[in-house]
Amino acid sequence: MKRVLVATGGGDCPGLNAVIRAIVKRASQEPDWEVIGSIQSFDGILREPTEIKVLDERAVAGIHVQGGTIIGTTNKGGPFAWPVKNKDGSWTAVDRSDEMIRKLQYLGIDAVISIGGDGSQRISQQLYEKGLNIIGVPKTIDNDLSATDFTFGFQTAVQIATEAVDKLVTTASSHNRVLILEVMGRYAGWIALHAAIAGGAEVCLIPEIPYDIQKVAEKLQSRYNKGKGYAIVVIAEGAMPKGGTLVSEQSDEVGYHNLRLGGVAHKLSRDLKDIGFDADIRETVLGHLQRGGIPVAYDRVLATQFGVKSFEMVLEGKFGEMVAYRHPDIISVPLIDAINKPNFVAPNCDLVRTARGVGISFGD
Amino acid sequence: MKRVLVATGGGDCPGLNAVIRAIVKRASQEPDWEVIGSIQSFDGILREPTEIKVLDERAVAGIHVQGGTIIGTTNKGGPFAWPVKNKDGSWTAVDRSDEMIRKLQYLGIDAVISIGGDGSQRISQQLYEKGLNIIGVPKTIDNDLSATDFTFGFQTAVQIATEAVDKLVTTASSHNRVLILEVMGRYAGWIALHAAIAGGAEVCLIPEIPYDIQKVAEKLQSRYNKGKGYAIVVIAEGAMPKGGTLVSEQSDEVGYHNLRLGGVAHKLSRDLKDIGFDADIRETVLGHLQRGGIPVAYDRVLATQFGVKSFEMVLEGKFGEMVAYRHPDIISVPLIDAINKPNFVAPNCDLVRTARGVGISFGD
Amino acid sequence: MKRVLVATGGGDCPGLNAVIRAIVKRASQEPDWEVIGSIQSFDGILREPTEIKVLDERAVAGIHVQGGTIIGTTNKGGPFAWPVKNKDGSWTAVDRSDEMIRKLQYLGIDAVISIGGDGSQRISQQLYEKGLNIIGVPKTIDNDLSATDFTFGFQTAVQIATEAVDKLVTTASSHNRVLILEVMGRYAGWIALHAAIAGGAEVCLIPEIPYDIQKVAEKLQSRYNKGKGYAIVVIAEGAMPKGGTLVSEQSDEVGYHNLRLGGVAHKLSRDLKDIGFDADIRETVLGHLQRGGIPVAYDRVLATQFGVKSFEMVLEGKFGEMVAYRHPDIISVPLIDAINKPNFVAPNCDLVRTARGVGISFGD
Amino acid sequence: MKRVLVATGGGDCPGLNAVIRAIVKRASQEPDWEVIGSIQSFDGILREPTEIKVLDERAVAGIHVQGGTIIGTTNKGGPFAWPVKNKDGSWTAVDRSDEMIRKLQYLGIDAVISIGGDGSQRISQQLYEKGLNIIGVPKTIDNDLSATDFTFGFQTAVQIATEAVDKLVTTASSHNRVLILEVMGRYAGWIALHAAIAGGAEVCLIPEIPYDIQKVAEKLQSRYNKGKGYAIVVIAEGAMPKGGTLVSEQSDEVGYHNLRLGGVAHKLSRDLKDIGFDADIRETVLGHLQRGGIPVAYDRVLATQFGVKSFEMVLEGKFGEMVAYRHPDIISVPLIDAINKPNFVAPNCDLVRTARGVGISFGD
Repeated sequence: MKRVLVATGGGDCPGLNAVIRAIVKRASQEPDWEVIGSIQSFDGILREPTEIKVLDERAVAGIHVQGGTIIGTTNKGGPFAWPVKNKDGSWTAVDRSDEMIRKLQYLGIDAVISIGGDGSQRISQQLYEKGLNIIGVPKTIDNDLSATDFTFGFQTAVQIATEAVDKLVTTASSHNRVLILEVMGRYAGWIALHAAIAGGAEVCLIPEIPYDIQKVAEKLQSRYNKGKGYAIVVIAEGAMPKGGTLVSEQSDEVGYHNLRLGGVAHKLSRDLKDIGFDADIRETVLGHLQRGGIPVAYDRVLATQFGVKSFEMVLEGKFGEMVAYRHPDIISVPLIDAINKPNFVAPNCDLVRTARGVGISFGD
Repeated sequence: MKRVLVATGGGDCPGLNAVIRAIVKRASQEPDWEVIGSIQSFDGILREPTEIKVLDERAVAGIHVQGGTIIGTTNKGGPFAWPVKNKDGSWTAVDRSDEMIRKLQYLGIDAVISIGGDGSQRISQQLYEKGLNIIGVPKTIDNDLSATDFTFGFQTAVQIATEAVDKLVTTASSHNRVLILEVMGRYAGWIALHAAIAGGAEVCLIPEIPYDIQKVAEKLQSRYNKGKGYAIVVIAEGAMPKGGTLVSEQSDEVGYHNLRLGGVAHKLSRDLKDIGFDADIRETVLGHLQRGGIPVAYDRVLATQFGVKSFEMVLEGKFGEMVAYRHPDIISVPLIDAINKPNFVAPNCDLVRTARGVGISFGD
Repeated sequence: MKRVLVATGGGDCPGLNAVIRAIVKRASQEPDWEVIGSIQSFDGILREPTEIKVLDERAVAGIHVQGGTIIGTTNKGGPFAWPVKNKDGSWTAVDRSDEMIRKLQYLGIDAVISIGGDGSQRISQQLYEKGLNIIGVPKTIDNDLSATDFTFGFQTAVQIATEAVDKLVTTASSHNRVLILEVMGRYAGWIALHAAIAGGAEVCLIPEIPYDIQKVAEKLQSRYNKGKGYAIVVIAEGAMPKGGTLVSEQSDEVGYHNLRLGGVAHKLSRDLKDIGFDADIRETVLGHLQRGGIPVAYDRVLATQFGVKSFEMVLEGKFGEMVAYRHPDIISVPLIDAINKPNFVAPNCDLVRTARGVGISFGD
Repeated sequence: MKRVLVATGGGDCPGLNAVIRAIVKRASQEPDWEVIGSIQSFDGILREPTEIKVLDERAVAGIHVQGGTIIGTTNKGGPFAWPVKNKDGSWTAVDRSDEMIRKLQYLGIDAVISIGGDGSQRISQQLYEKGLNIIGVPKTIDNDLSATDFTFGFQTAVQIATEAVDKLVTTASSHNRVLILEVMGRYAGWIALHAAIAGGAEVCLIPEIPYDIQKVAEKLQSRYNKGKGYAIVVIAEGAMPKGGTLVSEQSDEVGYHNLRLGGVAHKLSRDLKDIGFDADIRETVLGHLQRGGIPVAYDRVLATQFGVKSFEMVLEGKFGEMVAYRHPDIISVPLIDAINKPNFVAPNCDLVRTARGVGISFGD
């Protein structure tokens, strides 16, 4: 019996379960393969007692419809920087990668499929360099990876953000308000950009295009001047004014990525008032709602493709590579290439031009 | 030609447009009636120039599917307390009710249907006492009115809150987190209670049952002890600890009802940490998303019933009364009775007992 | 240890799983009770080997969100009319009720909760008369039971049918078509009536109000005359013309209740053409889509209330009774009373009056 | 003032309104352009009196959220084959293209944007060859065009079909049934293929891969043998057995494309019984529900991109070309190329391999 270990790392993302199910379904077609899930990324391997779960067809039945991941995830630590508490209460990061690889051998693991984002795939590459038979499956709800046309989870997040815009439009127009919707995207504004176009927002603020608060106010004011006394602003959590910096608050207490949720929307609201823009402004922060729930069909299809392909890459021994989507094909690319090429919104790309074409202002 | 004026006051609520459409559709069956909409509650009448809109069948085609109100709304002032700015920048409330009644006569208005909440219906009663032919249609998304079994908008808010719980469950369980969802309800916890039951939350905190933070922590800890490393808390914006007070921040800058949105969820999160509850806690605030969007079928039916009935009450001359739902009938009740009987969650009512029966803790 | 057996009978209905979960959650609060599920209604008891399933908290975790029933159902036979195949291929109905009661004793079952419709509750009553400790939970997606204000599953079906109307409106208006939507309701037209009002249909045909095909054509033609070149007709599967009979086709091959799905919509379409109504008419049959999927929040709350109450009735020994909803209370009523009082749409009830008030024609 | 005429032809498709809105929004940024809508494709131009509608920003406000097309559509005739009734009641197709081009000149139309499918774009090419300044926007809900990565409307149809599978799974599993879902796709099986993967169906039957009824029965039987007593079959309306022909019924009375809706699903059900497959089989036909309703975010974005680009092609004088999507760019391609290259499912493409990888049988 051969064994493939599956781990999901980083923030949860709609479609993770569909990837897991596809791996298990595909593996069940090979007579001698078994799929093992590591609980909460590689933590399950490193903990004592080991926390793993045999993933057979019964275990994955129907899970493609569920958000989240049935094997849990974590966005802390990992085998190269395992947090160990010192006697004085401080933390030290310890490299437990050799130990983990030995443990995988001991467990009879022949290959590993690591489903995760940026950080996870850097770990995959390091483990690969240490000789581990590892395959990467990219996971980034922000869609910020140039190696693949799209990543799963992104369309679900866009759909949720768009439905939020739809809801805010009715309340904004009834009350003559400006409604600011803060969505995910610390470095890449794809979710904000798609949702602004799909929802018909007036303003879209993203990390890649720093905004001028005066320009934002002018755009909003022009709506009131036209007699349309309301407007929707979609803002990515990483948006910032020209010359400004990330609204980081040195704390991930309530937010993603050390960024306090809602801080960006609130700053914009306050800044608009400070420069004298006189309207009823309200903020809504989507937060965790963007990650959860039932994946849209698009993401379920893409995730299933990634899952099947990743197991086939195991069969073909394509270790050190990552699955990717180049329409209409599912391909594999070297992990090392994939890690270092982010996919940001180019200010002159066709999608930004589309947005400007329907009158959306980026405040620039 | 006889004319009925329709106004929508207070916070927007899913179903308002269905009420308006039903009034217009029903009036179109009478040969000699015309429906006029007053823009932004009675403000449209008091402004110069008058802002009104003739509401014929074309104007209301398809609007029952839309949230919000096509004639706008406001939650400030009203004819008895119209805000006038003084030279020193301060505001004075001026009684313009007589002027408004004269203006309605001048416009040839034979009757008024006022769709609105608590505050609006108090105004309706005062106008009725001054001789205006006025009918009330109750609007409260919080469902806090004992004169009627249910009010429209409530089921839509519950559905939205429940779907939010569904989404948070997947992310909470993947990350072993406690997720706190703040929903509407300053004085009445109906939305929180329904969403907690429908979503399968572990804790539900409502204004009517003050909570003990230790009891909340114990309940959450018991989940972790059982091996279920996550939990969902649904909290109404008006929930408060035993002996505590409303988390009011003397400002309605970003919230409803002078209450800063998210304040309650954040306080709970902080308090849990302060007493040493050691888990990853995150907050989500639904805010304006609960008011917007497409009304669920239930609310469209109820709103349509209210609309038709209210116009028939005009035909019957039942002024000074309000439409209400007593299953399966649509009835009328005196405004004066309706205003003074709120509908709070009784701590021993069947619904609370149901919640306790499925293991939901109220922290008491 | 005491044991309560739970069985779900008849057509599946959104909310069944929420009832089951609530029973299990409530029972887990009693130190000495265990819940056993019988697979596919009572068939699981009567089969050899016995098919039952212990329902503990783990087994019911999260199921309130799922449609269907985790313990399966059937709408054939039952203990009093168990189908046995004869040598010549024909079937005989055999009374196995005594055998079943003995088997329940053998299994140590102290009480039974039977969740099911009309047919199932008649069986419950018969079993009760034979001495079985049985409690009924009503299940009818058609809402055709006068003992309770509402039954679970109904609002989900109405919501699905309403969303179907919403979708058909856009295609009907784009193509200037008449679109006929066939929904459930063989004897009671509640789903059709609610969906017609909520969706804004032009015509609603239900079993309780036989239609005149000429009147239907006139109503539709009046839409075209007004320049609105499209219309939506919602028809219950049991609707029939004046003096007509049910469109029964002596076969339940593809339909519910011996009624071929789509037959009614197709007959209406054909009859409209036969009398010379000249428009592009299309039909859509919702069929099984009305039963499946995620229950709306309303049904999850109601089903949870029924589940908790039914177990408490077991504790109180209220056998031979059925749980019911009388707003805002959850009560119990004798099974015998409940069985014999159906809840049909009264042609002069407030809801029909509402429908007429917004211009919906019943073709009468 | 320059004028661009917009027409929508063929079956309605989610996203049409978003295209129209984008054209109008983009045109409003040019000082001297006006957009005119032709009612019901080019019929509005050919009728007397002419039926056109000025499309300004007010006319298109908020329409991107609506399915259908605000300027109507038709799938009959066109300027080259206008149906004229003869005295004997028969019909003759008359070429009115020259007349139409003259009329467009008379109306001061400088360019035409024709949004439509296969048939519409053939007409566009013919009109272009006659000298008309025409731009094509592809519209095919079936996604069967190789010139573009995706067409709008497709993802909405897939989402609706997937949600239908989700609903059918709960009812199928509760009753141990085989449920057959018939979806659109006469020549191309993309919708069925995507929905089968996203929904987790067991069998997917598409026009491109003729099926063997025995193989279908074996696959279904294997589910029952494994103890999973239910299965979902997704079948495209153009699927056919090996050596078979389309289930055409020479009538488009109730179906698309001369194909009676439901015929294919019913044939499969009957054929399965005829070869002795003994299970409870039910059919559901999605029909018009796939076309209607609110477009998903993906389609709104793509449609908006197509709309903006098509107007910019007018500005650039790229007549005789069609807008297309080559990720991540929006490009233009010659109409003549686009028309003749359909996009069918290749039996060995990655998506089919994915489907087989998760155990979906194509019955081959």
